Amino acid sequence: MRTINLEKEIAHIVEYIQSYFQKAGFSKAILGLSGGLDSAVSAALAAKALGGENVTGFIMPYFEHSRLAVAHATELALDIGIKYETIWINTWVDPYFEAHAKDANALRKGNWMARARMCVLYDKSVEQKALVVGTGNRSELLVGYFTQWGDSACALEPIGHLYKTEVKAIARLLELPKSIIDKAPTADLWENQTDEEELGIDYPVLDQILYDISEQGIEEWSDSLPYSRAEFELVERLVKRSKFKLSMPPMPELSC
Amino acid sequence: MRTINLEKEIAHIVEYIQSYFQKAGFSKAILGLSGGLDSAVSAALAAKALGGENVTGFIMPYFEHSRLAVAHATELALDIGIKYETIWINTWVDPYFEAHAKDANALRKGNWMARARMCVLYDKSVEQKALVVGTGNRSELLVGYFTQWGDSACALEPIGHLYKTEVKAIARLLELPKSIIDKAPTADLWENQTDEEELGIDYPVLDQILYDISEQGIEEWSDSLPYSRAEFELVERLVKRSKFKLSMPPMPELSC
Repeated sequence: MRTINLEKEIAHIVEYIQSYFQKAGFSKAILGLSGGLDSAVSAALAAKALGGENVTGFIMPYFEHSRLAVAHATELALDIGIKYETIWINTWVDPYFEAHAKDANALRKGNWMARARMCVLYDKSVEQKALVVGTGNRSELLVGYFTQWGDSACALEPIGHLYKTEVKAIARLLELPKSIIDKAPTADLWENQTDEEELGIDYPVLDQILYDISEQGIEEWSDSLPYSRAEFELVERLVKRSKFKLSMPPMPELSC
Repeated sequence: MRTINLEKEIAHIVEYIQSYFQKAGFSKAILGLSGGLDSAVSAALAAKALGGENVTGFIMPYFEHSRLAVAHATELALDIGIKYETIWINTWVDPYFEAHAKDANALRKGNWMARARMCVLYDKSVEQKALVVGTGNRSELLVGYFTQWGDSACALEPIGHLYKTEVKAIARLLELPKSIIDKAPTADLWENQTDEEELGIDYPVLDQILYDISEQGIEEWSDSLPYSRAEFELVERLVKRSKFKLSMPPMPELSC
């Protein structure tokens, strides 16, 4: 796995955000706060770059069971000194499923929620003359563990080049609340869901395999590698299956 | 302006759609039907490629005044022999604006509606094991006349390489309903809105300028060109201003 200089990387990202906002002519940022690690780190870096008074976190719960996540997100906002607003999204999630998709499973509902949150962020970005800051990390982007046109929709991805384990290391260095750093990563699609259980692999192993595939050019598993063939093939499959989510829709070229 | 062989182009797009679906392992398509030209042509081409029984058009009105558009969309679906379904989207547009954005203007509401339609299409695409076919043309993509993560969200853009005037010529050749071909293009954000009035330029002129800028490499207006300096500069501005909408969110590179 690669070793990065965390201090230097933080300064680099802060500069990247500043330069992006300056070129685009914006001074304010908004982003979704889930109560999890990625949005906490993204918010903290945005606050470092633009000043906490120019960053607003939107906490957008759906489930009653998400109250602890709401508490974590609120704690984070207060801790890093950004503004925040809580908007429950039930009123424009439920009417659709009741009328048009009664049998939809948790995944379909979760995708709708992620897209509903995008709708709020993009509307509020106009109201506040702000840019939407993304919260995706390299691990979840590469394996497609996000909702297309949902949580991946943003103006820029400040931590999109960092593996999940690196984001966690940065969170520690930034001294973000322990409640956020120590809890198991979750997309919060149902109670007690965890990413690692749903993906079928732990993040440290996932990151190592992603690094080997995408940066070391390893194409085939061999028994000298520090993970099993099954793990390697799982990750390979996830990456291949979700590649389409990382680019804009293709179109034909003119025939003549 | 470029001249294209319309018959050949239709066959080429049909083949492109077939090959895309085959590679992706899908046989069914869904798309939004607005009652306008672009979605009509996209639906007709999808039907040619996949068979009408494998294509479903979703008609998703919000305004009472859109009843004529609903009628046109329905006429189109029956005419080209695809399935269709009508879903009014008010119940998950209004609750947000009533609770969280009472003063939002028509543009903000229109963008929310476009994104709400995307939510429906992407949810229904899972239910129906279908791919979402886009309806954007090259003219509106280049000047950014669409909602980011809304009507531009799709698996593929079958007419994304064609200027609006070319899409209209294809509609004529496909003998689509005159009600659709002859009406003024509109994003239907308010009653009697027309694209050309809102953009401040007619499509034939817009297309000529876009062609000159993007394919002929013309960087400065001169008085030998068949349009005014003001028109040229308007289009230049629109293209520049909306470029960010055509690519995925950028991210930093690792600092070291």
